[in-house]
Amino acid sequence: MLRITQLVHHLLTGVIHEGDTVIDATCGNGYDTLFLAERVGESGRVHAYDIQPEAISTTEEKLIAHGLHRRVHLHLASHETIAQETTPVKAVIFNLGYRPGGDKTITTRPASTVRALEAALFRLQPGGMILIAVYPAHPGGEVEAEVVRTFVARLSIKHFTAMHMSNMLATERAPFLVAIEKHSERL
Amino acid sequence: MLRITQLVHHLLTGVIHEGDTVIDATCGNGYDTLFLAERVGESGRVHAYDIQPEAISTTEEKLIAHGLHRRVHLHLASHETIAQETTPVKAVIFNLGYRPGGDKTITTRPASTVRALEAALFRLQPGGMILIAVYPAHPGGEVEAEVVRTFVARLSIKHFTAMHMSNMLATERAPFLVAIEKHSERL
Repeated sequence: MLRITQLVHHLLTGVIHEGDTVIDATCGNGYDTLFLAERVGESGRVHAYDIQPEAISTTEEKLIAHGLHRRVHLHLASHETIAQETTPVKAVIFNLGYRPGGDKTITTRPASTVRALEAALFRLQPGGMILIAVYPAHPGGEVEAEVVRTFVARLSIKHFTAMHMSNMLATERAPFLVAIEKHSERL
Repeated sequence: MLRITQLVHHLLTGVIHEGDTVIDATCGNGYDTLFLAERVGESGRVHAYDIQPEAISTTEEKLIAHGLHRRVHLHLASHETIAQETTPVKAVIFNLGYRPGGDKTITTRPASTVRALEAALFRLQPGGMILIAVYPAHPGGEVEAEVVRTFVARLSIKHFTAMHMSNMLATERAPFLVAIEKHSERL
């Protein structure tokens, strides 16, 4: 349960409820999109973004196979375009780097990642969570990891909690997970 | 949900099932013991340890108030004595440092903490989890934090996953959580 992919789902299970709107910022092979579609229920909505047509089609097939495609709006677009809508969201998942099994030269880029993170933060509801899986080992990955750390360091401790989660038995440049929670108004 | 105390409970919710035997290595004010007693159900068993009589009595009162005391075996003893029993356990919670609201000069000690961690590891079932909340800010806390890191570094990556979880917005010597999962035989 402590693998990053499992942790993301386990953490969000405590956050997402039926009827929520959520975002998969990089749908990749669609595993997170499918999970999100299950969690938001019949009345919820998932927005999933990817710049690669194969990512969108793979994800769409998975959703159709599970009868969940009506809950999901697939965007063949960069996750930067998260900013184009304004509906508040309960959760956003980022998987940085390249698509597993896909073209490794097509990766998320630091500049657009920052804009996407800022848009996600802007749209995040109180009590909501942003999860960012960071893979520093690919070319440019270290820069992207640093961009994420800088982004988090600017958050106000009054409004956010940000946890860094990493495998203690892994080698250098191992993946890590950042979980950002926006405090609910009550706090 | 990302506070260390909340994370511990959230992670264990995915691990502990009805009928399990689990350990609270430092029952302190009894919040974790109470949570564990709820999770293991009617047929489960919690062993809770503390060297301070007030910790044991506070915990006992909480359990009685919730009608859960029959599921819990309270031990007025150091967590080192975990080694005296051999029943396999599904989960072990360690809260290092001093008891909140109690005598701050009475803290867990590196030498006994290591022995307790080793005993916990020895008794951990496949699929089980050890959670260690580390508070480096108290006197001796840095040494204890180092002891935990050294303990974890010796674990075999083949049999265990160990995640380090820390608040990115906190100051130096902030608390951190270590979650150790023993892989199930199937893997």
